[in-house]
Amino acid sequence: MPALIVLFPIFGILALGYACYRICWVLRKPTGTKRMVRIAGHIADGAWAFLRAEYRVVALFVVSVALLLLLAGVTTDGLNPFTAVAFLVGALCSGLAGLVGMKVATRANVRCTEAARGGLGEALAVAFGGGSVIGLTVVGLGSLGLGGVLLLFGSLIGFEEEGVLDVMKIVTGFSFGASSIALFARVGGGIYTKAADVGADLVGKVEAGIPEDHSLNPATIADNVGDNVGDIAGMSADLFESYVGAILGAMVLGSVFVAVPEFRETGQGLGAVLLPLALASVGIFASIVGCLLVKVRKNGKPYRALNSGQLGAGALVLAGGILMPSLLLPENWACYGKLYSAAGVSISILLGLAAGLAIGFVTEYYTRCGSRPVTEIVRQSRTGAGTNVIAGIGLGMFSTAIPVLILASTILLAHHFAGLYGIAIAAVGMLSNTGIQLAVDAYGPIADNAGGIAEMGELPPEVRERTDQLDAVGNTTAAIGKGFAIGSAALTSLALFAAYTTACETASGVALKIELTDPSVVAALFCGAMLPFVLSAFAMRAVGRAAMAMIEEVRRQFREIPELNAALAVMARHGSSSVTDWPAEDRETFEAADGKAEYAKCVEISTESAIREMIRPALLAVTAPVIVGFLGGPAMLGGLLVGVTACGVVLALFQANAGGAWDNAKKMIEAGIDVDGEHLSKGGDAHRAAVVGDTVGDPFKDTSGPSLNILLKLMAIVALVIAPMIG
Amino acid sequence: MPALIVLFPIFGILALGYACYRICWVLRKPTGTKRMVRIAGHIADGAWAFLRAEYRVVALFVVSVALLLLLAGVTTDGLNPFTAVAFLVGALCSGLAGLVGMKVATRANVRCTEAARGGLGEALAVAFGGGSVIGLTVVGLGSLGLGGVLLLFGSLIGFEEEGVLDVMKIVTGFSFGASSIALFARVGGGIYTKAADVGADLVGKVEAGIPEDHSLNPATIADNVGDNVGDIAGMSADLFESYVGAILGAMVLGSVFVAVPEFRETGQGLGAVLLPLALASVGIFASIVGCLLVKVRKNGKPYRALNSGQLGAGALVLAGGILMPSLLLPENWACYGKLYSAAGVSISILLGLAAGLAIGFVTEYYTRCGSRPVTEIVRQSRTGAGTNVIAGIGLGMFSTAIPVLILASTILLAHHFAGLYGIAIAAVGMLSNTGIQLAVDAYGPIADNAGGIAEMGELPPEVRERTDQLDAVGNTTAAIGKGFAIGSAALTSLALFAAYTTACETASGVALKIELTDPSVVAALFCGAMLPFVLSAFAMRAVGRAAMAMIEEVRRQFREIPELNAALAVMARHGSSSVTDWPAEDRETFEAADGKAEYAKCVEISTESAIREMIRPALLAVTAPVIVGFLGGPAMLGGLLVGVTACGVVLALFQANAGGAWDNAKKMIEAGIDVDGEHLSKGGDAHRAAVVGDTVGDPFKDTSGPSLNILLKLMAIVALVIAPMIG
Repeated sequence: MPALIVLFPIFGILALGYACYRICWVLRKPTGTKRMVRIAGHIADGAWAFLRAEYRVVALFVVSVALLLLLAGVTTDGLNPFTAVAFLVGALCSGLAGLVGMKVATRANVRCTEAARGGLGEALAVAFGGGSVIGLTVVGLGSLGLGGVLLLFGSLIGFEEEGVLDVMKIVTGFSFGASSIALFARVGGGIYTKAADVGADLVGKVEAGIPEDHSLNPATIADNVGDNVGDIAGMSADLFESYVGAILGAMVLGSVFVAVPEFRETGQGLGAVLLPLALASVGIFASIVGCLLVKVRKNGKPYRALNSGQLGAGALVLAGGILMPSLLLPENWACYGKLYSAAGVSISILLGLAAGLAIGFVTEYYTRCGSRPVTEIVRQSRTGAGTNVIAGIGLGMFSTAIPVLILASTILLAHHFAGLYGIAIAAVGMLSNTGIQLAVDAYGPIADNAGGIAEMGELPPEVRERTDQLDAVGNTTAAIGKGFAIGSAALTSLALFAAYTTACETASGVALKIELTDPSVVAALFCGAMLPFVLSAFAMRAVGRAAMAMIEEVRRQFREIPELNAALAVMARHGSSSVTDWPAEDRETFEAADGKAEYAKCVEISTESAIREMIRPALLAVTAPVIVGFLGGPAMLGGLLVGVTACGVVLALFQANAGGAWDNAKKMIEAGIDVDGEHLSKGGDAHRAAVVGDTVGDPFKDTSGPSLNILLKLMAIVALVIAPMIG
Repeated sequence: MPALIVLFPIFGILALGYACYRICWVLRKPTGTKRMVRIAGHIADGAWAFLRAEYRVVALFVVSVALLLLLAGVTTDGLNPFTAVAFLVGALCSGLAGLVGMKVATRANVRCTEAARGGLGEALAVAFGGGSVIGLTVVGLGSLGLGGVLLLFGSLIGFEEEGVLDVMKIVTGFSFGASSIALFARVGGGIYTKAADVGADLVGKVEAGIPEDHSLNPATIADNVGDNVGDIAGMSADLFESYVGAILGAMVLGSVFVAVPEFRETGQGLGAVLLPLALASVGIFASIVGCLLVKVRKNGKPYRALNSGQLGAGALVLAGGILMPSLLLPENWACYGKLYSAAGVSISILLGLAAGLAIGFVTEYYTRCGSRPVTEIVRQSRTGAGTNVIAGIGLGMFSTAIPVLILASTILLAHHFAGLYGIAIAAVGMLSNTGIQLAVDAYGPIADNAGGIAEMGELPPEVRERTDQLDAVGNTTAAIGKGFAIGSAALTSLALFAAYTTACETASGVALKIELTDPSVVAALFCGAMLPFVLSAFAMRAVGRAAMAMIEEVRRQFREIPELNAALAVMARHGSSSVTDWPAEDRETFEAADGKAEYAKCVEISTESAIREMIRPALLAVTAPVIVGFLGGPAMLGGLLVGVTACGVVLALFQANAGGAWDNAKKMIEAGIDVDGEHLSKGGDAHRAAVVGDTVGDPFKDTSGPSLNILLKLMAIVALVIAPMIG
């Protein structure tokens, strides 16, 4: 047994250890007033209720698929029955990562609010502390789970000769398990969060005139639950899947080199199989160091603090990417008529890292407050919602150009320097930093939640201002994180696609030809290109329906709960004047309504809709490759995968960037801005137009867009799993 | 020289003869009042001004490309210098078709208005008369031009042995010429029509409260010019290109069979090359018969009249599709290890016909007033513009599923029955009816224009009601026509793609491998998938900018022209009361403003913006395949083409259907409708929300969506032209 296979899960344990240390640190922080604790309790309960409901459905799905895998494994030659076990472990690890993330986030939020009473630096420390627990739990469980499965089946089957291939087949199940959970988490979470958000905004803010995050709004808890459900659990599952998928893809492609003489001679037969694990281990170490580097001095900028952590981690991975290939691989070797070199592999790793960074920067440019494209949306908001929406769609579509060119160049160059293995290892390079990347991503929703608690907890305005400052940075990191998630999904699914073709060839013993001169491949590719649109449609319609249900429930509560009804009437009478200026009687009526809203009912409605609506798209994603694969054969399935990936990546970039840009265009107007001599501000016509764009962008960037990432990877992994049967 | 090559241009002359007969018939109809003639004159002048400006730019482009082709033809082996001549003829024919269409439409419109004073049947006869001139001019010039080029170079080079291949190479230039004009016509026309439309609506209707098509609105003439520029000239050029491209693709693929013994033995060596021409000839005959069948009885339904013409023509083509292959092809033959049969080719033709019909039906379902999906948009309009836009996007995305599945099945089945030739001949089958299809398409904008003239000409309300009735049917036929245009573009570009691979193989002498296991192909495919998004972004942003310029001009005129300014003030004072109830003094002020608006200035602005903005996307479409082809080689170019086609078709379907549905959702609310016990009507909140959706949908369905059709075909034809040089 190679030492790295034993070391890898140990790095996972190290990451989990650090996460434990940080979680204890966060939990020791004070939780603030009783009111804050009560509100945070509502949010935590709501999140937990959603997760329980989601996991009940998911468990049914996971058990069914596991039984199918077992059956297929027992009855057919291609599939190893142990795949079902690996699948269960993968699903378990991914589910556990989501659970831990959610639990941590719903505890860190209120502590972040309390810390914000003291200052910006303290609040950042708590929010990022929570985020780093989430980030390291994901990579920790990923390494421990994947490493454990490798160790278990490696010692059962052995890594000699055919053994590697068998072990790889089994480990594919682990990745499949992770993907299944990810799909439900992303789609379900995305629907939940936007239904609650749209519902809370449309009835609460627009119809009843209640400020955002006010305790009178029955949907406000559901809205805050949504941040945890969509942005924390969804993003965690997404990156968990990419992380595991990229490592697995590279290992499968690396297993081709086992028989190459240069590898045998150096005694490093498994070098190319182990390199992804080594890189991931370096990444864990780098992420921990990076997390330790994030510190805000008094009056320091939160953005700079986060940046220093990411740069530090990036530098370490860079060093690892240069060093590791020379340690694990022969200097030069040849395989299937192509020459490879350790240096070429190093270059591919660096290409992946650079591509992730570059896509992040481009995403930031197209979505940042004040950038030229976003300002153009602001300008177009002056002539109404129609031109605002057109401008946002135009920006989103245009913004796909550079990221796609970056991805295409990365593919070309990585392949030039290290073949298909180069593409897969570039994906690993991009994802090795997942720990700190996710920590930065997860920090945003925690800060957002902290702001909600500050508002509902009726804390002094400077607390809300501080959390808003953290949240603004969080919006930018979220946009970058989305770009990163899409880029990594694209490379990962290409790596898995390459692994799929290799697996088909191994199974059939002949080279797999997926030629575009074959019309059946083109027909499948057409269908593949259509699937991302249909999945997006499912997601958008689901949000529409779920939001409608939420709107009706909020209206019902306003109508039927006498205290709420009376308080709203008082509010309407006094308009925007401060509560403290009202007569005592009105103040009493208003205060009597506090906590009377039935939050749990709204949480329940969001939960039910999200769970119900996530099933159809999930089945579509899982069954499409199975149907095409078994009816049309491996070449048609290959065409389908490439169609899904190419079109899905572009559509995801479009939706994420358009959504982010609309959001920040609205924020720019809310902050007040002069455009061509006209002053735009909150409440004006331009603002109303910008709100429409933001409403459209919400499901784009938080539901359908992110779901596409999973679609790509899940379909590729399903193909890889069934490859031995159809190859 | 085979007889069919001589017969084919004669059928073209027949079509042109019928068009001449109909145009004389239309021109003999009365033109109505002096006021109507003056208004129609403004529209005709505006359209002519645009076309002149457009053709100036296009001429520069065409001459440059022709010189490049000549240069490449003289200096390299692959390209025949005569290609440049064919290119010029193709561009000329396409340009001429657009010119004739525009001239006819701007003469038929006012005559249709005048006929509408008499009754619905007469008005339909004139509008459809104009449409049929346009339809038959397009197929006539297509057949005459293509046939003429074939005849000329066929007699120069001969059809023996290598001769066919050389002639085919030259004829490709004809198709390229047609495509170039089409791109400018679609993109430029699309930008023009929507800039004028949005500008006229936003300032005229919304800001100043002037009714649609009122002579006080300076942009109203530009708006009516737009119908001719975008819907007539643009659609004509689009279908001209598909028509020629499909025939050419099938001929190139048919030339593979020239060497097959069974063909030689029957004395029909060129049978497969000639079949597309025979089908097109049958189509011309069928279209003329179909046009003669369109008649409305007193109180008959216009939709039924149009349908009977289409069905009659369809039946004739059906018969031709069954008969022709058995006449021209051997009963069975084998080529490259695949078995073919005349019956299989017949089935492929019928598949193409059926697919065109089926896609039309699906399009109608997703965009028709009162259908379930459109009613869902109406329902979602009640909660505002945001949910209206989300619902429309969701519908559009979902609506791509069935058409793509139809296309994929057509590809699979046609290939199963007759190989690559089957796919190409299916495209010809679908397009053989272009004459009557385009007649029905073009009838809509003529009726629309007639309505505008009725309004501006201050004719009695029943005239406007009749033209509105015609226009409503026109909306449905336009939606179906768009679905048909997309479907035919997809099949045509696949046929051209197949021709491209064949041409590469002929040039290099080895089989062209475009394998998805080759990462450079996948990278190119990614870039291809991105291009339709970027082209759409160009188009949408251009509309935004051009509309802004228009809005500013209209505002300037309202401010600076004293008569307009005074009339608007009077209108604002009297609100919605009828002009006849006003005091004499105000009535005089109001009437003094009539005709004072500087229509020509608005026409000029639309023209300038459209011309300027069309250049960049056009260059992108032409240069992308050249760059990828010469730098990356034929396989990468193949990947690029498939990426563009797959993603472009889905995106075009999405945009066309979403746009059509938004438009009709707005119309449903304007007509008044009860949804869940709530009455929605013009002027309400739901209507305002629906107007936003319609504004977004306008550039979708009339600018960016249709431009994508051309993108697919143009890039494929450019690839086919350069194939001999890079193969």
